[in-house]
Amino acid sequence: MHTSRAKGKQCFLVLRQQQFNVQALVFVNDKTVSKQMVKFAANITKESIIDVEGVVQKVAQPVESCTQRDVELHVERVFVVSASAPQLPLQLDDAARPEHDEEDASRPRVNQDTRLDNRIIDLRTTTNQAVYRVVAGVCDLFRATLTGKGFVEIHTPKIISAASEGGANVFTVSYFKNNAYLAQSPQLYKQMAIAADFEKVFTVGAVFRAEDSNTHRHLTEFVGLDLEMAFNYHYHEVLDVIGDMFVCIFKGLRDRYKTEINTIQKQFPSEPFRFLEPSLRLEFPEAVAMLREAGVEIGDEDDLSTPDEKLLGKLVKAKYDTDFFILDKFPLAVRPFYTMPDPNNPKYANSYDMYMRGEEILSGAQRIHDPEFLTERAKAHEIDIEKIKSYIDSFRYGCPPHGGGGIGMERVVMLYLGLNNIRKTSMFPRDPKRLTP
Amino acid sequence: MHTSRAKGKQCFLVLRQQQFNVQALVFVNDKTVSKQMVKFAANITKESIIDVEGVVQKVAQPVESCTQRDVELHVERVFVVSASAPQLPLQLDDAARPEHDEEDASRPRVNQDTRLDNRIIDLRTTTNQAVYRVVAGVCDLFRATLTGKGFVEIHTPKIISAASEGGANVFTVSYFKNNAYLAQSPQLYKQMAIAADFEKVFTVGAVFRAEDSNTHRHLTEFVGLDLEMAFNYHYHEVLDVIGDMFVCIFKGLRDRYKTEINTIQKQFPSEPFRFLEPSLRLEFPEAVAMLREAGVEIGDEDDLSTPDEKLLGKLVKAKYDTDFFILDKFPLAVRPFYTMPDPNNPKYANSYDMYMRGEEILSGAQRIHDPEFLTERAKAHEIDIEKIKSYIDSFRYGCPPHGGGGIGMERVVMLYLGLNNIRKTSMFPRDPKRLTP
Repeated sequence: MHTSRAKGKQCFLVLRQQQFNVQALVFVNDKTVSKQMVKFAANITKESIIDVEGVVQKVAQPVESCTQRDVELHVERVFVVSASAPQLPLQLDDAARPEHDEEDASRPRVNQDTRLDNRIIDLRTTTNQAVYRVVAGVCDLFRATLTGKGFVEIHTPKIISAASEGGANVFTVSYFKNNAYLAQSPQLYKQMAIAADFEKVFTVGAVFRAEDSNTHRHLTEFVGLDLEMAFNYHYHEVLDVIGDMFVCIFKGLRDRYKTEINTIQKQFPSEPFRFLEPSLRLEFPEAVAMLREAGVEIGDEDDLSTPDEKLLGKLVKAKYDTDFFILDKFPLAVRPFYTMPDPNNPKYANSYDMYMRGEEILSGAQRIHDPEFLTERAKAHEIDIEKIKSYIDSFRYGCPPHGGGGIGMERVVMLYLGLNNIRKTSMFPRDPKRLTP
Repeated sequence: MHTSRAKGKQCFLVLRQQQFNVQALVFVNDKTVSKQMVKFAANITKESIIDVEGVVQKVAQPVESCTQRDVELHVERVFVVSASAPQLPLQLDDAARPEHDEEDASRPRVNQDTRLDNRIIDLRTTTNQAVYRVVAGVCDLFRATLTGKGFVEIHTPKIISAASEGGANVFTVSYFKNNAYLAQSPQLYKQMAIAADFEKVFTVGAVFRAEDSNTHRHLTEFVGLDLEMAFNYHYHEVLDVIGDMFVCIFKGLRDRYKTEINTIQKQFPSEPFRFLEPSLRLEFPEAVAMLREAGVEIGDEDDLSTPDEKLLGKLVKAKYDTDFFILDKFPLAVRPFYTMPDPNNPKYANSYDMYMRGEEILSGAQRIHDPEFLTERAKAHEIDIEKIKSYIDSFRYGCPPHGGGGIGMERVVMLYLGLNNIRKTSMFPRDPKRLTP
């Protein structure tokens, strides 16, 4: 029961179920509804779970405040299944109010921490009911698209014996009498699956980063949408697959989640997400030229800063009318040791990021699949070969050329919907300061 | 390249791709193939990745040793893409041999640890290629069935602030300056999603158990297939959904994974998995009676031991011809504090396990959704109320009656296929003694 309002011999209820609500009316009549019953209905606390029996009636005037506008329910019986405490820690109407509405500026809002501290109530807003259906949609579209392209779903271990990326930003776990670590990415395991002849694999699962970043876009635990594939002639086969996959996700959301997106837009308005088909692909030097033209000082082999990315997103949107693009051929110097250099220009790498609304949502590359060359590149990065021996050894028994990438699921949803904080797309977010609920 | 065998002026290759293989022939001719080329082909190390160009030819006699029996490939050109080291740590033919074959008893087998130590090679057997496609199939069928029934997929945190089940068997994580834990189940979060009005939810993800159990069926990290749903009248609505879901999984495997199952049967023969539609549902006292009739001494309110479960599975199979059944109404005394007692008989609970081939694969129950009653039951179990305050508080703002269960994915695949070790269905298994690869 979303709200109730008694008025003389009648009581108006709003009944809510997930994304939808309907008006219900309890009024005294000769047959089933007594004065006491109206009083009983009026005294039910907001947010209680109730069962009602009644008759659905057409209404003369549309009920503007409900999603079911053409009907109301004339209640004959009402049962309280589970009563809510009378004092709620936050009001749903406050939680559902647009954040920036000048006309309505004086009315209360609910801040992010209060929402998260009382997540089970905050999640009841129609907006959140819609957001987490979009989350489910992104995962479903990711899997369905890749399964359709011949990928096999795999599961990779989260507890690992050695810190994969050199030990920084990794959580340590007590594992019986030893230490272990939480995987920062499934990359090694995806690559092992490719070396094990699975050809094309994806995995959806928790990824952990012990990074003390308190920003709108970092979580310490998030859902990784990861894929890896062998290719035949050129790593652009991988880019084609990933680009297509994003187009399938964007189209699927647009076509199948219209109701949800409209609901979310009411509380969090944003420009509709624009994309091209096929996806726009730029090379790193083009991005550098666009940034320089806009006044940014940047070296040929510098990495992009977060503000650079944001600006580049705006420039690309203005020039190409797309909120999604692929940036290929990153400078080799700014990518990890296992990244395949560009055979035609050793300053650059067969390595790419992808962006939505100017924020990175995927990082990937062709990986080196030759153990000798991998050793050479690790040495050039001054990495202790002994510590990555098992990684290098994975490629000693034949491994096809391959590439892939990892996607932050919550970022994709946040940016697709134009939301301003990743905590809005993680049901129970984890950051350096939050471990509950 | 699976194998090569040179013989005079020709060389026979077997080329393997995932579950399939084909014979290829390199023989000296006037046009494209020289003696040197035959020699080159003969010297390619087994398990190398090669590209070949050639002509597909019908064969007069079926090629018994390959999956492609009616054709062979007459090779014109061959390129080594990635050469394997000449010494393999295990031979694929040995790894692919049936474990119990008396005629063939003298030939080498590969033991479980050698397989796992060299997993990327072991996974290349056609059997393993098939097993991990069945793994993907179970997850896909689980999700598709529940999505079809109106469930929403959610993601629950793996890092949690307090050990959910009282602190036993939980891994500790260093979380910045504090300690955290790895979730032993998503149960609390599934229940919070129900309290948050999502009505029916499922989640697929890693589950962690710091249990020092070195058995054929325990892992320290496994994939949990979890679901939770609100119901209207009776918790048997939940049992109906779960029973149906298993039927959909079993049928889906039988109908869509025939090739894979046949491949696996060649190495690991087992009786085909039998199931009933609708699923068989027994009550605990019936199981006790069947066990007593078979000579087992067991009290009315005793839990079932592992041997009891195994025997019960045999008795049920003999009587009802099914490898899957639901055992409802466990004694309240052997179930956790949050389990709803049977309102008609307080000795029993609205709680159930499900079995495949006599091993438990799901445990579940109706959960108590009333905070006062939950407090009372926790006290009866001598649980410190302060420590579970936030759990109890989740139910203070209205929560529908609900129930659900958690399924061990690897167990389902192991038992469906009649395999003897859960390490055969976990791509990179974790147990108390194994953290690598």
